[in-house]
Formats: sequence, structure tokens, C-alpha cells
Amino acid sequence: MASSFAGKTAIAGIGATEFSKRSGRSTLRLAVECSEAAIEDAGLRPQDIDGIVTYTVEENPEIDVARSLGIPELTHFSRIHHSGGAACGTIHQAAMAVDGRACKHVLVYRAFNERSETRFGVGVQGRAPTPTPIDVDFGWSSPFGLLTPASWVAMFATRYMHEYGATSEDFGRISVADRKHAATNPKAFFYGKPITLEEHQRSRWIVKPLHLLDCCQESDGGQAFVVTTLERARDLAHPPAVIASAVQGIAEDQGMMKSYYRDSITGIPEMGLCARQIWEDTGLRPADVQTAILYDHFTPLALPQLEEFGFCGRGEAKDFIRDGCIEMGGKLPINPNGGQLGEAYIHGMNGIAEGVRQVRGSAVNQVPDVENALVTAGTAVPTSAMMLSRDR
Amino acid sequence: MASSFAGKTAIAGIGATEFSKRSGRSTLRLAVECSEAAIEDAGLRPQDIDGIVTYTVEENPEIDVARSLGIPELTHFSRIHHSGGAACGTIHQAAMAVDGRACKHVLVYRAFNERSETRFGVGVQGRAPTPTPIDVDFGWSSPFGLLTPASWVAMFATRYMHEYGATSEDFGRISVADRKHAATNPKAFFYGKPITLEEHQRSRWIVKPLHLLDCCQESDGGQAFVVTTLERARDLAHPPAVIASAVQGIAEDQGMMKSYYRDSITGIPEMGLCARQIWEDTGLRPADVQTAILYDHFTPLALPQLEEFGFCGRGEAKDFIRDGCIEMGGKLPINPNGGQLGEAYIHGMNGIAEGVRQVRGSAVNQVPDVENALVTAGTAVPTSAMMLSRDR
Repeated sequence: MASSFAGKTAIAGIGATEFSKRSGRSTLRLAVECSEAAIEDAGLRPQDIDGIVTYTVEENPEIDVARSLGIPELTHFSRIHHSGGAACGTIHQAAMAVDGRACKHVLVYRAFNERSETRFGVGVQGRAPTPTPIDVDFGWSSPFGLLTPASWVAMFATRYMHEYGATSEDFGRISVADRKHAATNPKAFFYGKPITLEEHQRSRWIVKPLHLLDCCQESDGGQAFVVTTLERARDLAHPPAVIASAVQGIAEDQGMMKSYYRDSITGIPEMGLCARQIWEDTGLRPADVQTAILYDHFTPLALPQLEEFGFCGRGEAKDFIRDGCIEMGGKLPINPNGGQLGEAYIHGMNGIAEGVRQVRGSAVNQVPDVENALVTAGTAVPTSAMMLSRDR
Repeated sequence: MASSFAGKTAIAGIGATEFSKRSGRSTLRLAVECSEAAIEDAGLRPQDIDGIVTYTVEENPEIDVARSLGIPELTHFSRIHHSGGAACGTIHQAAMAVDGRACKHVLVYRAFNERSETRFGVGVQGRAPTPTPIDVDFGWSSPFGLLTPASWVAMFATRYMHEYGATSEDFGRISVADRKHAATNPKAFFYGKPITLEEHQRSRWIVKPLHLLDCCQESDGGQAFVVTTLERARDLAHPPAVIASAVQGIAEDQGMMKSYYRDSITGIPEMGLCARQIWEDTGLRPADVQTAILYDHFTPLALPQLEEFGFCGRGEAKDFIRDGCIEMGGKLPINPNGGQLGEAYIHGMNGIAEGVRQVRGSAVNQVPDVENALVTAGTAVPTSAMMLSRDR
């Protein structure tokens, strides 16, 4: 049962601030700056916006961003929970709203000072216990030292290595590809700074088996989009990036970073659920995808994503990514912008922007003849994914 | 431009816990209990649920409720912000999702121990200042004593009285009607406890011009719904309560409880925006509505709601509600369940349940021949509203 909005909406505008480690200004200002840029990129004015979608963890409410931009009225506003898992979920939401005529043009934004103010990498250390389900859940694992995102992911990585014979070098190849792409992207924080696999191997341990260079950056910045119907998008400033599919997934016994009680923890069933819906919505197959922007907060979880979408068999991602096939010019270039490891960590939103640029043909590291670009959102959490396609 | 999902979806199941001042159990348990009841009321099983919508302020995440109920997979999950303003927004959202085929059956829930654990009535007292827009905004008003919801609403009430000659007795008539209805509703906290206008007038000041009996209860409890397409709902356990329209509204210079900088503060333009959309979606007029469940956290803001929907002219609500016309048997009975003043304060969600019962014809205080029941959500915040109709 394909969704009724698949292929009928588009991303018409993208906008971002610079990506840095210290923005030097408020997150509200970042949110407004990137939103203004996205609206302008679409060739619209703030008065044309009548819907807003953002993250539950976004600290700048719709009303403040709307007031600052001069948006008079909103007839749709909603939020997606689960941090980076929300990325493509915001687009799913916006697409549904414009297709359902709840509004005409949805602004989607996410902005934070994630490096200079609130660092997510510290995890739940120092968090006061409360009787809410979230804190009760952490109460079962925190006493054993599972306190940070890196530690939560390390459990999945260890099991994956054990079961499939993957090595730290296999994870490292994700970093090397990302940093290679970032090196030629002037917007990337690691512009001009590629790394070798040896450097990855020598980088210090964060939580075994994760080296420093397996962990994405912490960044300050904002990224925004304008979503509208495909019909309207065709009259706007850029060729539409068609939202061929935008889906969400929560799978059985889903946890928040710690779905350890499943029979197997080497796959990402919630991403598999997203994959199933995307193939159903689009009628495409993995061979029809020219580039994939994979959520890469930690390298190990990039591998099972390739498997869940069927780019390779279960446990075979390590073979798939050897010999540079995920780099520019390879079989499936991933994260041509440098990903979150190389460009910036904007909670998955800068990956969506790269998907749009690849479909527009305007990326700085452009994959040739992109018809379809896959984008995924946060792993190990309730997640989302999307296929962006060129307008036919 | 009517929304494409108007009239094509329905509320198929309703379920609630008891409403109390001390539930004696966790909010997760309340959320699961009311959800289970709603699913059973619809004649469905947890495995049939594939979407969840709730409030951003809900402390029980989708994944915990899904796991506890035995829901295997979710392909839509989203949240609505702005506390009680979210009530009908959750239904707007759920209707969009099932109409857009993102999922088939959406569970909507809200559960809290708002009396025995976290009382909203205390407002922002004791809240540590942070550099987020929300706290910066409160920083401009808190030093002047505007610290609680009652104090924020008192400003609107005072201006409304000044401009239109409304009196405390006019506000009191809302309370009297609500408590009269609650008195014959065994589920209401104030069952068997009607009040007189004299008792309202003698009740102590909370913040002038608000008496104690102008302020709704604080309650523990949970309320849930199942939303699906009208077509599917027709095969389920009860006659569908058709979602003829479910809309959201943020109007110009919208604040959170404190939109004081508008040219006029006696109306509720965001509710007017909802009204405009509802009349457009349904083609109905005020005379076609047999009962209205108005959000009544504080009595004064019930009056401009009647005006925004056109049940009476601007400033004329005081005349409209005199002589019992908002009581059972009157021209427009409001809150036949007793409202939040009389039944319970479940963030507007128990009002939606009453709307469903009125349309089903199964309410304890049944208005005769209900074809259309209006339900509104929180006022003075970004809001939402809906029209429930009998299936034709």
C-alpha cells in the first residue's frame, strides 16, 4: 500500500548557515537565518509559508521563528521526536501536510549550538533520575557504564564484528570516504583535511571498538527546507527535488539507542521497515539509486544500513565497501558532502540538503546523472528515510 | 481550499482511565490503560495499530506505549506542541496520516498525573532561566508577577471586561453550566456537585478577575482514541464519528499564553483561523451545530470562542450565554460532560471523547439529534479545533 503523497510533493528550497564549532550567536538567529535562506532559495517570501515542521528537541518554537521571519499565519505545525531519527520524518510530515491541503508551503528547520552550548556526546551523564519511562529505561543500563551515544553504539558494533567478521578497518573505510568527500567541499568543517585508514586506526579509543575517527563531529549550525506540492514546485526557482517517498519506522521492541533485547542486534529492523516502504512507494530497486546519504553519527551503523536497503546481502557490507566503491566514482558513492563525519553534524538535516543538491545537479561533489538519491536518518532510534528523485 | 482529508476519516474508538486527583500509578500505566480501552472500543487489536500521535509534552514515548501494548511496527509517529492547544491537532495529524496512507490505524493518547505529580497551575515559578526563546520570553513578564496560567489569562479577561462590559457573573455562568452538566455525569470528578452563581461569586480570588471557580481542575488520568479512514471505520464496532474537519491555527504575533502585543487582545485570532477553516472544510454554518465542547481551562476565554465561531457577534457572548442557553436544553449546550471545570482536565482530550459520544448518541447528557459537534482546544496558545459529524 503505497502512500498517497509519494511522488506528489517536492523540496523546493534549501538553506543553511555556516557549519562551525562556535557560531557565536543564538540558536534562534541560526534558525531564522537558515529558514530565510531556504525561503529565498525557493523564490518565495515568508508570507507564503503557512506550515512549519521541526524536531521535538528543537529549542526554537514555531511561533518565535514565524514572528522573526514575518510569517503571518500557520495552519499546520507538528514535531517529530527521537532526535536525529526525525530528519526525514520532518519531510514525511511536510509532504503529507501539503498533499492533504492542510497548508501550501511548509518550512522545515533544525538549528542548534550543539558544540558550543549543548553537546549531545556526553549522553545521560549527570542526568537526575526521574520516574518517567525514559529515565527508568536508562536506569537499567547507566549503572553499567552505558552513558554516552558512543557506548550505546559500541554494543551493536561489537556484536556485528563478532557475527560477520567485520573489523575496525571496515568501519574506518566509512570515515575515509566521508573525509575524502569533505576535503573537496568548502562548506565542510573538514574541508581540505582528508584522512587515511592508518590515521583512523591510530586515532584514540573512545569506547572500544570505536576510535575517535568513528565518531561524527559535534557542530553548531542550522539547516532548513521548503516543501510544497510538486505542481507548485515546478513554478518555483529551482528544478523540484521530488519526494518520491518519505517514510518513518519503529520496529518491534524498539528502544532509544539501546534495542538490545531483540533476538538479533546486528540489523536495523526499523530501517528495514523504511526500506520496505520506500521500494513500495517508488517501485525502484537498489540498482536505480545513484547515491546514498547515510546517517553516519558512528561508522559501524552505516554498514547494516547498506544491508537493510538491499545494496548488499546481510553481513556483506564490509565486502561491499572495500576498494573504494562508496567513494566518488565508485559503485554507490555515499555522503558526497562529507557526511556528518566530514561536513557537519546537523542532526541529519544537512544530508537531506545534499540529497537535494545531487538531484538538482548542483552539488560540489556531483555524482553523474543522479536520478534517485537515498537519504537516511538517525540509527538505533525510531527513524525515517526518503528517496529524492529528479522530476521527469 | 478545503483540506483533502476533511470528511474522509473518523474516530473509531475512545478509551479513558478514571479521572481523579491521585491515580496511584505511573503515567505509563495510565497511557497504556486508556490506549487499550480505545483499541478495544474500536473492535481492534494492538497489532492493528501502525501509527501513534501524541503531545510533545507527553512523557510516555511512542516506543514504550507500543511495546507495552504489543504493537509490532509503526509507520507514522508525530507530536503536537503547545500543551492543551494540541488536543484537536493530534486528530488533524492522525486524519492526515491515515488519509495519506502513511498508516491504517492511528492511536492518539495523552496521560498524566497532573494533580498528584506535576501541576501545571504553578506556571513558571522556580524555573531556572536559560537562553532559549521560551525562557527569554518569560523573562520579560515574570518579573512583573505574571507567573501562572491564571495570571496570564487574567490580562485577557480584564481587557475583555473593559471593552465589552462583561462581568465576573458572565464568566461564572460558564462554570455553573459546566458544573450542572458534571453533576449528572458519573465519570466527572464533580459528579453530584453543582454550583450556583452565588457560590461562584463567593469563591476566593486566584488572580483578579478570576475566582477559584473560574479555573479548571487539575487532574490525573488518560484519554485515547483510534483514528482511521471513514471507509474502515464503517466496518468497526461503533458508528463512526466522522472527522468532518480537524484544523490548527497560529495567528499573527502569536505568543504562548501571552499574545499581549496585538492591536486587540479581546479576540482569539488563532481560533478564528480554525473557525474559518472548519466552515470551509464542512460547508456548515453555526446554526448547523447542535453542541460545542469548548476548551475551558479558564472561563473568560470561553466567551471569545463563541464569537470567533460566529455563534454570536463580537462582544456579545455575555448576552448569548445569559438565561441558560449554554445549558442542556438551551440553544447551544456546551460541554455536556461537564468540561474541564466539571469532568476533568485531560488537556482537552476528554472534550474530544465527549464530542464522539454526542455524535454516537451515547453521551450520559445527550443533546438530542446531534448531527455536528464542535470541539476546541487550548486557548491563548497555538491551537486547534474540529467538527465531528454523524455518518450520513
